[in-house]
Amino acid sequence: MHKSNGRKELSIVALGGGTGLSALLRGLKKYTSKITAIVTVSDDGGSSGTLRRELGVLPPGDIRNCLVALSEEENLMARLFQYRFPSRGTLAGHSFGNLFLTVMSSISGGFSPAVASSSEVLAVRGKVLPVTLKSVTLSAELSSGRTVKGETNIAKSRSKVQKLSIHPALPSAGPGVVDAIKKADCIILGPGSLYTSVIANLLVKGVVQAIRRSKAPKIYIANIMTQPGETSGYTLRDHIEAIEKHTQKGLMDYVIVNSGKIPSKLLRRYARKGSYPVVADGIIYGIRLIEADVVSRREYARHNSEKLADIVCKLAV
Amino acid sequence: MHKSNGRKELSIVALGGGTGLSALLRGLKKYTSKITAIVTVSDDGGSSGTLRRELGVLPPGDIRNCLVALSEEENLMARLFQYRFPSRGTLAGHSFGNLFLTVMSSISGGFSPAVASSSEVLAVRGKVLPVTLKSVTLSAELSSGRTVKGETNIAKSRSKVQKLSIHPALPSAGPGVVDAIKKADCIILGPGSLYTSVIANLLVKGVVQAIRRSKAPKIYIANIMTQPGETSGYTLRDHIEAIEKHTQKGLMDYVIVNSGKIPSKLLRRYARKGSYPVVADGIIYGIRLIEADVVSRREYARHNSEKLADIVCKLAV
Repeated sequence: MHKSNGRKELSIVALGGGTGLSALLRGLKKYTSKITAIVTVSDDGGSSGTLRRELGVLPPGDIRNCLVALSEEENLMARLFQYRFPSRGTLAGHSFGNLFLTVMSSISGGFSPAVASSSEVLAVRGKVLPVTLKSVTLSAELSSGRTVKGETNIAKSRSKVQKLSIHPALPSAGPGVVDAIKKADCIILGPGSLYTSVIANLLVKGVVQAIRRSKAPKIYIANIMTQPGETSGYTLRDHIEAIEKHTQKGLMDYVIVNSGKIPSKLLRRYARKGSYPVVADGIIYGIRLIEADVVSRREYARHNSEKLADIVCKLAV
Repeated sequence: MHKSNGRKELSIVALGGGTGLSALLRGLKKYTSKITAIVTVSDDGGSSGTLRRELGVLPPGDIRNCLVALSEEENLMARLFQYRFPSRGTLAGHSFGNLFLTVMSSISGGFSPAVASSSEVLAVRGKVLPVTLKSVTLSAELSSGRTVKGETNIAKSRSKVQKLSIHPALPSAGPGVVDAIKKADCIILGPGSLYTSVIANLLVKGVVQAIRRSKAPKIYIANIMTQPGETSGYTLRDHIEAIEKHTQKGLMDYVIVNSGKIPSKLLRRYARKGSYPVVADGIIYGIRLIEADVVSRREYARHNSEKLADIVCKLAV
């Protein structure tokens, strides 16, 4: 499976969340086992009392998706984590993946440490780290003047996001996060929801500083399609400006944007929901634009894992 | 953790079951990740209907113990597998390890394939294979003339075992078993219960033939203490003769027997249960006797993982 052919294994850090990040990880694991996926987590507070009450509460799907994407036996792991208990009793209808994370939380002393521990007991190529152990919430000032709170509400907002904030402000980074960025041979932002996955990670204390100080190539992987609500009508430049506005200029060395054709049938389906291709709109000073066919043309206009990992790994060496 | 220092990783096969095999595996994983533990399993028949009815039935502890012993994060994995559900409902009081194997059984189509699959999704150095996928039972002719059926009854019998049989006779070996033996750089029998763990494995079709044909060193690790019932009063020679009687002469190249001192307090406690040290009683033609201090002197007179693995790996290269 490993494609490095005896060369030093690349150490890659990818910050994001959700389906997009999983697609990248799925491709990257064929090149290296030194992958750290840094994901946003809404911590549950961590006391065992809370955890017990929460037997059955859904932990964020992003964590499960990332663990499955990094698995050496992805199909088997996906089936294991998706398994739903058929019987009566407290677990009826719940997934094994959730139960696994709940039990890990119970023995690790909280949901966030459980995420790190899960990478250790499962056969995964790399690890998944929560960006912070703090119990944080996001809020967004919209162009309408309104402020919305919480990841779900931000993602649903029909008005453009002007400014994303995290509360409490500047939460400290989770164990291993800053260190992984420091040691990375390549740092990747995204793919993922611009505000709630990519920028949310960058609002954690020490993350931007560690990225800025690193000499490794820093790559932003733009989404294939805009997300109605979070990025309605955004061009590529809008995405980059949003990141720079929340961090600083010069954070990224490369931007990968899809130039592959998306079937018109798919485009029409997305358009009906207000979602359109993210297009490269001219030169952005200081950032090298990589236009490449990185799209998977199946049911959804999403990133193709292999194409994406191939380009990333070429930029990384 | 890995001690091979760039040399070719040794591929080691160990046949047995129970606590003894776990102690060996725990030591071996520091030397190599190419470990195959072949263990006896009483298959449950495999249909998903049966499995559902069995949500809650204890799968053999040997499998769980071997998976935990091979884990890269043994403490964490042990705590995970030992975790007991505190809540009400169908799972109350059951361990996570059993639930894990039950769910794996459900998605893999039976308990035995689930064992092999478990090695793939968990971070274990090596794999655990059931010696056969057939639903087998053991029976023993005792020196008293009586015949007893089933692993538990054989282990409890107060009369010496004359002949162990497996039913149905010569069950075919499970996937990967014969192949693992063929490719091994070292083949180890035990430690474990002489009849129900060691010899039981050797009654499976193709196992003895594969061992005999292999040019790898073949090592029998004798138990530290006799087991009342199975091996009451057995000397080392009795153990070897029992194995040869059920297979053939010349199957083993080496025998490792403990020569380390066992504290008299421990000896007295064992003696009260009719258990005594297994002693080397003279030369056994064709087999090289390795007398070494391989005992752990804590609560029980059991093998010390590190001492045992150290000797095995020296014999293997």
